[in-house]
Amino acid sequence: MASRFRITRALARAEKANTSALYSRPVSSSTACNAKFTTDSYPEIKRDSRFSQLTEDHVKYFKELLGSGAAVLDAVTNEAAVDDMEPFNRDWMKKYQGHCRLVLKPGSTEEVSKVLKYCNDNLLAVVPQGGNTGLVGGSVPVFDEIVINMSRMNQIRSFDEVSGVLTADAGSVLEVVDNYLAERGYIFPLDLAAKGSCHIGGNVATNAGGLRLLRYGSLHGSVLGIEAVLPDGTVVDDLFKLRKNNTGYDIKQLFIGAEGTIGIITGLSIHCPQRSKAVNVAFFGLESYEKVQQAFREAKGQLSEILSAFELMDNESQELVRRVTKNNFPLESQYPFYCLIETSGSNSEHDSEKLEAFLEDVMGKEIVSDGVVAQDETQIKSLWGWREGISESSGAFGGVYKYDVSIPLKSLYQLVEDVKAKIQTAGLMGETDEYPVVDVVGYGHMGDSNLHLNVCVRRYDKEVEKVLEPYVFEWIQKHEGSISAEHGLGLAKKKFIGYSRSDNMIGLMKQIKNLYDPNGIMNPYKYI
Amino acid sequence: MASRFRITRALARAEKANTSALYSRPVSSSTACNAKFTTDSYPEIKRDSRFSQLTEDHVKYFKELLGSGAAVLDAVTNEAAVDDMEPFNRDWMKKYQGHCRLVLKPGSTEEVSKVLKYCNDNLLAVVPQGGNTGLVGGSVPVFDEIVINMSRMNQIRSFDEVSGVLTADAGSVLEVVDNYLAERGYIFPLDLAAKGSCHIGGNVATNAGGLRLLRYGSLHGSVLGIEAVLPDGTVVDDLFKLRKNNTGYDIKQLFIGAEGTIGIITGLSIHCPQRSKAVNVAFFGLESYEKVQQAFREAKGQLSEILSAFELMDNESQELVRRVTKNNFPLESQYPFYCLIETSGSNSEHDSEKLEAFLEDVMGKEIVSDGVVAQDETQIKSLWGWREGISESSGAFGGVYKYDVSIPLKSLYQLVEDVKAKIQTAGLMGETDEYPVVDVVGYGHMGDSNLHLNVCVRRYDKEVEKVLEPYVFEWIQKHEGSISAEHGLGLAKKKFIGYSRSDNMIGLMKQIKNLYDPNGIMNPYKYI
Repeated sequence: MASRFRITRALARAEKANTSALYSRPVSSSTACNAKFTTDSYPEIKRDSRFSQLTEDHVKYFKELLGSGAAVLDAVTNEAAVDDMEPFNRDWMKKYQGHCRLVLKPGSTEEVSKVLKYCNDNLLAVVPQGGNTGLVGGSVPVFDEIVINMSRMNQIRSFDEVSGVLTADAGSVLEVVDNYLAERGYIFPLDLAAKGSCHIGGNVATNAGGLRLLRYGSLHGSVLGIEAVLPDGTVVDDLFKLRKNNTGYDIKQLFIGAEGTIGIITGLSIHCPQRSKAVNVAFFGLESYEKVQQAFREAKGQLSEILSAFELMDNESQELVRRVTKNNFPLESQYPFYCLIETSGSNSEHDSEKLEAFLEDVMGKEIVSDGVVAQDETQIKSLWGWREGISESSGAFGGVYKYDVSIPLKSLYQLVEDVKAKIQTAGLMGETDEYPVVDVVGYGHMGDSNLHLNVCVRRYDKEVEKVLEPYVFEWIQKHEGSISAEHGLGLAKKKFIGYSRSDNMIGLMKQIKNLYDPNGIMNPYKYI
Repeated sequence: MASRFRITRALARAEKANTSALYSRPVSSSTACNAKFTTDSYPEIKRDSRFSQLTEDHVKYFKELLGSGAAVLDAVTNEAAVDDMEPFNRDWMKKYQGHCRLVLKPGSTEEVSKVLKYCNDNLLAVVPQGGNTGLVGGSVPVFDEIVINMSRMNQIRSFDEVSGVLTADAGSVLEVVDNYLAERGYIFPLDLAAKGSCHIGGNVATNAGGLRLLRYGSLHGSVLGIEAVLPDGTVVDDLFKLRKNNTGYDIKQLFIGAEGTIGIITGLSIHCPQRSKAVNVAFFGLESYEKVQQAFREAKGQLSEILSAFELMDNESQELVRRVTKNNFPLESQYPFYCLIETSGSNSEHDSEKLEAFLEDVMGKEIVSDGVVAQDETQIKSLWGWREGISESSGAFGGVYKYDVSIPLKSLYQLVEDVKAKIQTAGLMGETDEYPVVDVVGYGHMGDSNLHLNVCVRRYDKEVEKVLEPYVFEWIQKHEGSISAEHGLGLAKKKFIGYSRSDNMIGLMKQIKNLYDPNGIMNPYKYI
């Protein structure tokens, strides 16, 4: 059996086509989700009457503070600038659109502090915004909240080449930072498809997970320091740059994953690992989810310290990518499941030896049916394209209902099967235009028990929604999972927090919110 | 040059002597620090008059709740039991001793909740206590606080053999848990000398660092869930068991490192890595701290993913161990500095090859002067004994002033040199009994920028203290380090928090303390 793998490997048919488009996050071409105001989609959300309306005096204050150049986009006093607001008012999926008429781009922590203090004193609601690549509507306004966009704070402040600790402004773009680190032999401990646009401050504010969590752990462990501003202007000056600091409550942790509801992160320091000299990627087909679990167990045991990704894709998700990209499948036959394994280590020979031994073993045991190993950087990118292309391909037919959930491994894929069965039973899925649902696909970070469930639709449809919700959330609750593994709650999951958190925990969160933001000006109408 | 290492290696003289005593934490035999009440050492601390005095009625309530057996140690109504209080009143260094007359050992989270609620309602101060192995006086009472000892809550609740997630009671002993995991091919992501006594709940409450942090990161990253009880009896039921959960503020993080000042941790879930099949240990001598830094840089680069410890010991620290243990040095000559490197990986052959290549490289470049590689488990323990034995050996002459600090690597060892110079200048250090100071030694977790500075004394002496403090803390502040890397603040560092935290941060901590513990009953008189 093992030789089959080798033959296939020799044939490695990974496309030479440039797949870089799959790595950047384009604006969706969907027509189904065009430019609908959030206030129309969520008529039950009412503007909080405590908040002031923006006046010319407010704008004048901000222009005096930040300068009247590019740092202030003002459609309050200048009606012609309304169109300039769109990129800040709308999320990249075009699912959420707000009515903001003022965008501020502070250039320093001090300016953020003055802006927030003024807003707090004058009861002006704000939305902190990084690269605006979020998936739950958390980074755009609902009503007329002021957008505080962090893109002007984009400098690397320091990097220690011995310890690997980087300190940078929150508005630094992830890919820019990672390239900077690559030149110095280091790697940012987080990677995700939106890296070309997203900000590291936004990554931390949303506790982004992504592709490297399996290897480098969560941001709660790697972020060493945070500089942030509270609504009253207080600077949380906790920008520590070493790995150990046991001097009282680790307050900064509250900002990791708070989604901008208690303050604005302006800078951070983070422990970056050495960049691996050797990276290998294998892609293989399996006959069942049971075998996927076996393969994962073997990979953990045999690849251990060099395993840096173990990704799962079902056949349906790969069919979508093929339909959209027109690329050839990397394997000769189709299988119900595919896994992508990445190893990262310091010795290419050792890693290849481990990976080959692993593949021979899982082929020999008939856990894996067929596979390829990338032979060069282009093939690595191409194989990753089959995984990273799912998100974009899922939306190419009109729209997509996305669920990003944690589920214990043994039941992880069952959610996809159960949801598909329900949609089929309801007669909502089919090949032709009369059916709203194109397909139900599952994929995700198997190594982190993190499933992405995409229900790909031709159009958004109340009947589909009725089947999906609250069914999906009830299912997750029953299986002791999380309704949001890495995307956060934002506006999209606001109503469903109770499926993942007890009343006690929600109560404790509200206490924290009230403690730091008693006027509720920070990212209002969202999950808290 | 490289061959020299090989010859030495072949000679590997690591002692066969049983060094296990160095791994458990014995009661110090020091006479200098005997049984002094904390109230005598810190006369400026006054009992808070808000707190009630314990009465027979209180004791009756607790006996009814917990049963009158071993769960309640009562010297309130039974004077004869005063001696039984000592192990709970006194820290293991015998530096701190309280006046507690009631020890409670709840057996369930519900009992902890009822105990705390009663104490809160009746203004009875409490001290949560795990294995009582802390180094800063945080786990023992000062006055008559009730000790809530967690030793009866010591069950492993669940373990998932695929994901490696363990859920256990807070009172489980670290070594017991690690042995349980070892049988299943996993490892607890934390290890420290006190493992035979310390509780995992205490480890989390103090954010213990220890020997595996370099490889497995901090508890802020690996702890997935916490169950804790607030003073008002509220159960923080956040015992999540998967790696990703982005559903609001990560409240549990506040309990990691809070040192029992806002609640009591009763259970936790934690992500445990695969146990490495191959462990190698090398021990080598170097001519300067500059070379130590070079060796660390090379080890990070060349050993990368298999490096699991990089420990630093100065010659003085190794002399102490030799004087106390009478063991032979592992190397033939003496050097100003020694490093202990541990690698952990899945393939013994690969790891040995990497380690040998590394050693040949650093020997060839004359970064390392001489070294040995352990040939078996006994030699591994023996070499570790030279590192782990320092703590005990430091106290063998009477007492020890211990500082556990983080310092940027480039200046890390300079603190030892500067402190020694100051003490010598003050005429306080010498070979004979008239001098209070025996020696000043430095060692620590180089890989984590964590230095342990021990000033070994024949007796505690105000003159020595005057030289040390606040000098050491001012030095740390100037170098942007932390006055407590992993030991915490407790009572010992209470006064010095300002050297590591700004007024803003201390203010934010006080807010949190007041939010959760408005009556201040949780571990009072300590750092907050």
